[in-house]
Amino acid sequence: MTTVAAYAAPAAQARLERTTIERREVGEFDVLIDIKFAGICHTDIHQVREGWGEAVFPMVPGHEIAGVVCEVGPGVTRFAVGDRVGVGCLVDSCRECENCKAGLEQHCAQGMVGTYNALGKDGEPTYGGYSEKIVVDEKYTLRIPDGLSLDVAAPLLCAGVTVYSPLKRWNAGPGKKVAILGMGGLGHMGVKVAYRLGAEVTVLSQSLRKQEDGLKLGADHYYATSDQETFEKLGGAFDLILSTVSAPLDLDTYLSLLKTGGVFVNVGVPEEPVGLNLFSVVGGRKALAGSFIGGIQETQEMLDFCAEHGCGAEIELISASEINDAYERVLASDVRYRFVIDAATI
Amino acid sequence: MTTVAAYAAPAAQARLERTTIERREVGEFDVLIDIKFAGICHTDIHQVREGWGEAVFPMVPGHEIAGVVCEVGPGVTRFAVGDRVGVGCLVDSCRECENCKAGLEQHCAQGMVGTYNALGKDGEPTYGGYSEKIVVDEKYTLRIPDGLSLDVAAPLLCAGVTVYSPLKRWNAGPGKKVAILGMGGLGHMGVKVAYRLGAEVTVLSQSLRKQEDGLKLGADHYYATSDQETFEKLGGAFDLILSTVSAPLDLDTYLSLLKTGGVFVNVGVPEEPVGLNLFSVVGGRKALAGSFIGGIQETQEMLDFCAEHGCGAEIELISASEINDAYERVLASDVRYRFVIDAATI
Repeated sequence: MTTVAAYAAPAAQARLERTTIERREVGEFDVLIDIKFAGICHTDIHQVREGWGEAVFPMVPGHEIAGVVCEVGPGVTRFAVGDRVGVGCLVDSCRECENCKAGLEQHCAQGMVGTYNALGKDGEPTYGGYSEKIVVDEKYTLRIPDGLSLDVAAPLLCAGVTVYSPLKRWNAGPGKKVAILGMGGLGHMGVKVAYRLGAEVTVLSQSLRKQEDGLKLGADHYYATSDQETFEKLGGAFDLILSTVSAPLDLDTYLSLLKTGGVFVNVGVPEEPVGLNLFSVVGGRKALAGSFIGGIQETQEMLDFCAEHGCGAEIELISASEINDAYERVLASDVRYRFVIDAATI
Repeated sequence: MTTVAAYAAPAAQARLERTTIERREVGEFDVLIDIKFAGICHTDIHQVREGWGEAVFPMVPGHEIAGVVCEVGPGVTRFAVGDRVGVGCLVDSCRECENCKAGLEQHCAQGMVGTYNALGKDGEPTYGGYSEKIVVDEKYTLRIPDGLSLDVAAPLLCAGVTVYSPLKRWNAGPGKKVAILGMGGLGHMGVKVAYRLGAEVTVLSQSLRKQEDGLKLGADHYYATSDQETFEKLGGAFDLILSTVSAPLDLDTYLSLLKTGGVFVNVGVPEEPVGLNLFSVVGGRKALAGSFIGGIQETQEMLDFCAEHGCGAEIELISASEINDAYERVLASDVRYRFVIDAATI
């Protein structure tokens, strides 16, 4: 066991405070990672505040981790000391179910082991990236290619793969018109990735406040959803709409923006049920789909893609003492576009 | 103009009565079809009763038409007198929009011209298959292969393609577990087609009343949705669920029966909006899709497939004087599995 410094919420709703946690011994197939940067994901705040149900405390959030390997177990073959690595939303899974075997570890039949707010196979709670070091099985450790700086790579481990996976699966690419709904941490990555996949990209955001950024990041068009004309103008316009929004939406209206055969895919999830007229999918043989992060192999594919295309996240680097303030700013949509904690300040 | 006998509803909600209608002259690219059989689709009843909004009266329903060509216009190249042909839900479309060019005439940007309860390009109302003869542009006329009897072919023109199109599009086939929800006119064709596409087929029906039929038509399994155990047993079981049900469904429950990546596709449409928790598609990256009949080329492909696989509809042949009674029996789900009118009795 190694004692490391970390920022933790001692109880639900509480402010995060500096503390220490124990990391397990480096096992046969483990790597010990010296964390350099950790992104702040909206999910961290949801979990700390128990927005999605009861959680495990103390909680060390953080599942957008970038760092450097500083020790490897004797069985490790994929990584060596000094390698630049990342850890995303999961650190283990059953490895035996149909989904695990298909590279869909995030949908493990036994339930994936989350990077924090979960219990590991050893029965011990997992602690996330707001800390100095982490021990992870090499199978759940990603390689960060040299072309990507670690600070802008960190948010890719959750935000990046969350948008990359559905954009690839639903064929965003040349000749396709793709709308990104929401221009936050996920949405801005959606724009960057969809643009680099070759799609014609439109941002649908509440206001035009971030229009300049959107166009700079690769969007061809930018519309405000607060303007009713947007919906009149864009009827039947898109092959694919990627919704990163967690607020309840008028799905029938958004489905009307799809071409025949188009797909509306959610990565954001409103907490309340939504209403839907099934004519909205039957007319135009459309689909309403969902997507949830990505598997390990796909996450590596995304990192390689982002490195090749110079596609890190847009970040605001903060010190650990600013985490609680950053949470408030995330809730106020006041971040462009992802806070990243400099782990040297933990 | 040719005067022909037909069965028509003189006004909304009214009983159908024998009458006469005028068919247009056979134009350059038209075929005149001597109708032999016309299927009764649930939609016919919806339209007569204005369940989907205001309709055009008098109304001659019928968009499941099988017959024989008895005259061709001078420009017709695809058909000759004596050919066995069918007409489905549409008899024209703009022919110029993206969808028409892609063989998705049912999603024509200008709106397809329905076989009845619509206005043709000449501004005249269209009249459907409950009649002796019909004049149709050869482009919207299908060939019924010799392997299919005309009586069991008629329902394929709507019911057949309505299930064939989504089963093909969403990859029903060998190694795939497909559930057919509802065991009526559409559902029984869903079983027959999915079985012949090579899928493992499960029927989910309100009761086990039609279980024997379902298994005979190709289903491997048959469950009652009135039994709560069905849902416990079948969690995560299916790659694809094809819903032919028009009653409102608990979508979240049905989505839980899908495997990771599975698709629930609606061809039935409840008149009221339904509730949906978006977690039901995000967890398991599932999709809720819709499908609406099929295009002309796809309808021909379906007819060829059904002929090759000896896959006509299961029908109850009636005389035209029985139409009104048949409507009541359709509404009571008391038909195995499609009423077909013998047009010689009109």
